[in-house]
Formats: sequence, C-alpha cells, structure tokens
Amino acid sequence: MPAFNPLVETISPPPIPSVQAWAKAYDGSKGPLIDLSQAVPGYPAHPLLLEALGKAASSTSFAGYGPIEGDRSLRQAYAAHVASRYGAQIGVDNIHITSGCNQAFICAAMAVAGKGDTVLMTNPYYFNHETTLAMLGIRTALVECLAEDGFVPRLEAIEAAIVSGVRALALVSPNNPTGAVYPAGLLRKIFELCQARGIWLILDETYRDFLPQANIAPHDLFSVPGWEDGLVSLYSFSKSFCIPGHRLGAITAGPRFIEQVAKIMDNLQICAPRAGQGAVAETLVPLTEWREENRQEILRRADALREVMAGLPAWRLDAVGAYFAFVRHPFPEMTSAQVAEHLAKQAGIVCIPGGYFGPGQEQSLRFAFANADVPTILSLRERLASVSP
Amino acid sequence: MPAFNPLVETISPPPIPSVQAWAKAYDGSKGPLIDLSQAVPGYPAHPLLLEALGKAASSTSFAGYGPIEGDRSLRQAYAAHVASRYGAQIGVDNIHITSGCNQAFICAAMAVAGKGDTVLMTNPYYFNHETTLAMLGIRTALVECLAEDGFVPRLEAIEAAIVSGVRALALVSPNNPTGAVYPAGLLRKIFELCQARGIWLILDETYRDFLPQANIAPHDLFSVPGWEDGLVSLYSFSKSFCIPGHRLGAITAGPRFIEQVAKIMDNLQICAPRAGQGAVAETLVPLTEWREENRQEILRRADALREVMAGLPAWRLDAVGAYFAFVRHPFPEMTSAQVAEHLAKQAGIVCIPGGYFGPGQEQSLRFAFANADVPTILSLRERLASVSP
Ligand SMILES: Cc1ncc(COP(=O)(O)O)c(C=O)c1O
Ligand SMILES: Cc1ncc(COP(=O)(O)O)c(C=O)c1O
Repeated sequence: MPAFNPLVETISPPPIPSVQAWAKAYDGSKGPLIDLSQAVPGYPAHPLLLEALGKAASSTSFAGYGPIEGDRSLRQAYAAHVASRYGAQIGVDNIHITSGCNQAFICAAMAVAGKGDTVLMTNPYYFNHETTLAMLGIRTALVECLAEDGFVPRLEAIEAAIVSGVRALALVSPNNPTGAVYPAGLLRKIFELCQARGIWLILDETYRDFLPQANIAPHDLFSVPGWEDGLVSLYSFSKSFCIPGHRLGAITAGPRFIEQVAKIMDNLQICAPRAGQGAVAETLVPLTEWREENRQEILRRADALREVMAGLPAWRLDAVGAYFAFVRHPFPEMTSAQVAEHLAKQAGIVCIPGGYFGPGQEQSLRFAFANADVPTILSLRERLASVSP
Repeated sequence: MPAFNPLVETISPPPIPSVQAWAKAYDGSKGPLIDLSQAVPGYPAHPLLLEALGKAASSTSFAGYGPIEGDRSLRQAYAAHVASRYGAQIGVDNIHITSGCNQAFICAAMAVAGKGDTVLMTNPYYFNHETTLAMLGIRTALVECLAEDGFVPRLEAIEAAIVSGVRALALVSPNNPTGAVYPAGLLRKIFELCQARGIWLILDETYRDFLPQANIAPHDLFSVPGWEDGLVSLYSFSKSFCIPGHRLGAITAGPRFIEQVAKIMDNLQICAPRAGQGAVAETLVPLTEWREENRQEILRRADALREVMAGLPAWRLDAVGAYFAFVRHPFPEMTSAQVAEHLAKQAGIVCIPGGYFGPGQEQSLRFAFANADVPTILSLRERLASVSP
C-alpha cells in the first residue's frame, strides 16, 4: 500500500468524537446527560436568521460561485461591525470571509509559515491550532500560561519565546480552553513586541461576543500604526449566530494579507458557502439586541458555575470566561482523560480532558459551560460531588 | 513588515478574476458578452433542489456542527449512487463529504504528500491542482499530453515519470481544461501501473456526469483488487447539481484513506456546510432524470461547437468533451493571454488562455462551452472569424 503523509498520519484523531463515545456509555442514573464538551450554543439561531438562511439557500442568486474574498454585502456589513465594535477604521478590503474560523486559522498560518518555520502558541492551546500546524510541518513552541495567572500569558514569557525561526504568535482571547480574557493593555504590549520583533500576531477572537463588557473594545490593536502589516484577527459566526452548520468565519487584516489569503482560499475551496453569507449580511445589525441578550445569559451561566464550584472545595475553578471554564479536578493520581471518562460514565457530565490541550494539563478539565442553561449548571454540584476516583 | 510564506507569495493570483477584467473592457458591439471562462452550469438548479435547500437551511436540524466525514444521509445516498454508476461495492465508509472538489483535492494531496514529495500531473493541468501543490511545497512533475492524442496521456509517459519521490499521480477525467475523456481501459492500465509502483492514483471526476454515455461505467477501478489502498476518486456537486455556491464535493476511497482525510478536514473546516448535504441527500435520486436531460443538452452544445469550429478552418478543435474544448487559435505569434484578451475586447468572448494550464500551451484557449446554450455557441462562428491579431 502506498504511504500516507507522515505529518498527517501522526496527528491524533479529532478529540470530540472520542469524548462523545464515553457519553454513550452513561447509564442515565443521574439524570439526563450534561454535554459540556463541544463549544456549541445551547440555544437555537434566531428565527429571523433561519428565515433569511432559507430564503438565500432557495434562491438562485446564491447558488453560483461567489467572490473568493466573500460576498461584498457580508464583507461590508462585517467591516462596519468590526469598525464600530473596536472604534477603528476597517473597510471591505480588510475582510476575507472563510468557511468558519478553523479555516480562517489555517489560511492565516499558511500565509505566514511553511514547513520548518515556527509558530508560537500558548499552553494550554486550542487543539485544532496545534494539529493544523503539525500537519503542515510548521513547528510550534509553547508559551506557558499558569493557573496562578488565570492562564493569561506573561509578556516576558512571550518575549523569551520569540527566537529565530518564529514567524507568528497565535493567541486566543477570550481563550479556548481556559476562558481567560486577555486584558487590552497586555494585548497592546504583546502586539508592539511582535511588531518590534518582526513576527505576525494571529489573534483568534471566536468568543469576542461573550466578553463581560459589551461597550468596551476588546483591544485597541486596530489603531496601532502599521497594524495592517502585523495583525491578523480571526472570527467565527458559529457561536454568536448559532450557525456552525453553515460554516462561516472571517479574517480581519491588511489588504496585503487578504491578497495572500485569497490565493490560499481559492485552492482550499474557491469561496465560503454563500447562503450563510447573504443571510448574515442581512441580519447582522437587526440581531444586535438578541446577541446582547445571549451574552448576558452566558454571563449568568458563568456566575452559576462560579457558585457551583464555590460549593465544591475539592474542585478548583482555575479560570472562567466567555464560553469556557478550566477546572482543576481533585484526583491528582488520575490522568485528565481518566477523570473525564469517569465524569461521563458515573455522572453523565461530558467534558474535555485538560491533557488534550497541551502537555502537563492533566490536572484540568475544560467545561464548555455555555452549552448548558443555569438550572442544568446548578445541578452539576451534586453530580460532581458524587464522582469517585 | 513580517514576511509571508514564500510558497504562497509566489503562486500566481487566481486566474478567473483577472480574465473577467478583460470582459469588462468589451464595448458590446458584437452583441451580449459570451462567457466561456468559468465552468459554471449555464442553467439553474432544479426547483426541487432549491426548495430542499431552503427547507434545510431554515431548519435548526442543519444549523449545528455535523459529523466531520459528512452527514450520514448524504454519505449513504452518494455511496449508493457511486455503487450503481460504477457497478461496484461502495459503502458509507468509502465516502468523505467535502466543501467542494478543490477541497477534496487538497485533502487528498495532503493525505499522501508533504513538502519535498512529488505529485505527477498532466500538462495541460487544472490550475488549482498546480497552485494547491505549489503552496504546500509539494513538487510537481508533468506528464505531457499531446494534441495529436486528443490530450489523452500515454501510458509510457506516465511510466517514465514515476521516479523516486513520486507519491501520487493526479488525473482529471473528463479533463479540465481539454475535455479529453480517458478511456476506461487506459485508466485501468494506469491504475495497475500505480499499484505496481506503489503510488496513489488521485482521479478528479468532477465532470463525470457529462460523459457521452450514461449507462457505461466511466471506469472499472473500483473493482480492482486492493483499490481501497491505492485509488482516490474526487467528485463535485457544483456542476451536476448547479450549486457551486453551496460548496459540496466528495471523496471516494478506502476507509484508511478516509480516516486520514477526516483529520485534515477537522483542521480545514470541521465539516462541510450542512444544508446542502441534507438537500442533496434528499434529491439525488429524484433528480436523476433531470441530470440526464442536462447531460444530453451539454452533448448538443458540444456538437454545436464542433459545427462552429468545422466552419473556421484557421481555428482547430484539438479536443472537446464534457464541459470543455481546447481550441488552437490561428495567431502563432501571439501568446494565449494576448489572444484571449483580444477575444474578450474585440468579440465579447471570454475564455481562459491555454498558458494558464501549463508550460507550452500558448497556442490554445479553453472554452467552457457548457456555459452557453446552442444558439449562443452557433453565434461564436461569426465572432471568432472577426478577430484579428
Ligand atoms: C478558538 C476557536 N477557534 C476556532 C474555532 C472554530 O470555529 P468555526 O466553527 O468557525 O470553524 C473554535 C471552535 O470551537 C474555537 O474554539
Ligand atoms: C477539475 C476540477 N476539479 C475541481 C473543481 C472544483 O469544483 P468545486 O466547485 O467542487 O470546488 C473544478 C471546478 O472548476 C474542476 O474543474
């Protein structure tokens, strides 16, 4: 049999399906399964968006190939949205629509690095960033984030990690898996460091719409002189708009960067699927209030989780924010996968083992708490207390 | 400014938009523009499919993430379709749904080759195959196809090209850009050669539904013992179903291959967009007769083009089939891009220069004739005759 590409053969299989297998073994004795594994909105898309999706998908206007960079209507609407959210000057030429944010990331990574180059990530990291770089033969180096810092990286640690061969720093804020929100001031210093050292900053802002404050810009990087030749911001419509099945994401960057991405995208899939583009362009503004309500609801869920964890002294909430909590379990002698399997089988709680997010994360579990409503989250207390090693 | 990945920086920009710029300069003096550039169906998707798309897209059932390999309903329906079309045993585990056939190709390429490996292509080639491999750092070597052979490759040429470092042979049949249909017997010999030499055969069958015969299997490779560990067949729903905007394609291969593709796809974009999957699963069988009518219509368009070219002794139809014709222009002293620009500006005919499909193709132009109806094709005669150097 002919050989496979060893870089692909050796990456681990996608973790979500394997975790879901544990869930299947749960006997239901503690009540319905509580799925805190995948970061999927626990509430449906808004009827207005579903209607617009139906209209666009059944129309011949969206059946044909579209522009590689994305439909102009969505690029325009999204540019205006980013401009107002960040108080920055962002135009159509700064936007490239992609088929989700994983695709935005691989486009960004390929644009700046090839086999043998290095991209910096944090530890813990979002696993698809790690496997994406690995399958491309791009080396990774890890900036350690500590529980005592709430998993926010230290500027000195980043500075020390930028050695020869590093082409970019990839960060996620609000963070997956920890939920940590990186302060705007720190992001500013990190970006200036990247600029000074001549490396790209790739900032995945998939969870931006779930920040604790809606009226404060997540950061001011789009106002830093020269940002267009240094910063790449990634976004996903999957979470805020509850439409992961429609595969829609966006890159905000300088026109020179967008030009490189267009060449990559043409090869990856010509253009993002179009019905979603048309529908989101139309509903982005009308659904502002609805997204705000969801943000507040998810803040309530975070509060509920804080309350639950406060009542479980053996467990520790190391970080919580936006969609995720990074939780320290009380079984130091077990691997995180063993604990997660126990949680699924004994207590009907599905979550992702910390070990899946980087070396040395065996003491942690990731709870994607945004998937569950407040009463469900409150019911975690009893279930977690019941888990034995 | 930080550097770009030189492999991406040096690939040429997507050709379709640049060709469309010439079209804009046409003054309309010869009548409406005739666009023979991009391979897009000249007729709309069937109302039944549009309706199913609208229903699926507006439903919460397709709003969530789906299985990486594709929705089971479409994998099942497509497996049954391939099984019957080829008279072969094909099951769900042989199918991976992708976001179009460009994506199917990059998945296949990445699964078998990395930077420094070689993949064989024909010359002329489908340009996205070339740019995809180039941006991954995969080397390409070209098997020359000759006008005198109707651009069908010779077995000996392939045999000679399989040297150390070659991981796969990538073929397109029916061919883009030439329209050449590779005989089943030749494909069989080519595949056996690949098997004997331990390389993968990646066969892009995007235009399979436009073959001259509907009831004869395009090839019998799915019955060759061990095919699952040697053959990768690619398909696009864009052309046959007239829904390129919905981004849907498929890979047919062995389960071991599908497993590698799933790891790649998870990083590329998690899963293909889902509404299209649901809608095609439902309408694949009901639209059989409609697809057959389209096939016959496109055969009539090919006949019309043959008639036109027979009346233009200075021009030569080197190959024609499925969606495309590869046409030799009468201006040996001009590059193919110059001729294509002339055609667009002087005669309102938009087509792709042969030179975009490989070295030494300057004497040719690609006509994507399937885009135009028979009367429009017949009107090409006068327009082509009017073009001067
Ligand atoms: C940090 C991060 N980036 C990207 C993605 C991918 O999202 P999308 O559905 O847009 O591909 C996710 C999804 O979980 C994520 O958590
Ligand atoms: C040979 C070939 N392969 C793949 C594709 C890409 O098709 P899709 O729209 O499915 O990505 C095309 C489109 O023109 C093609 O001609």
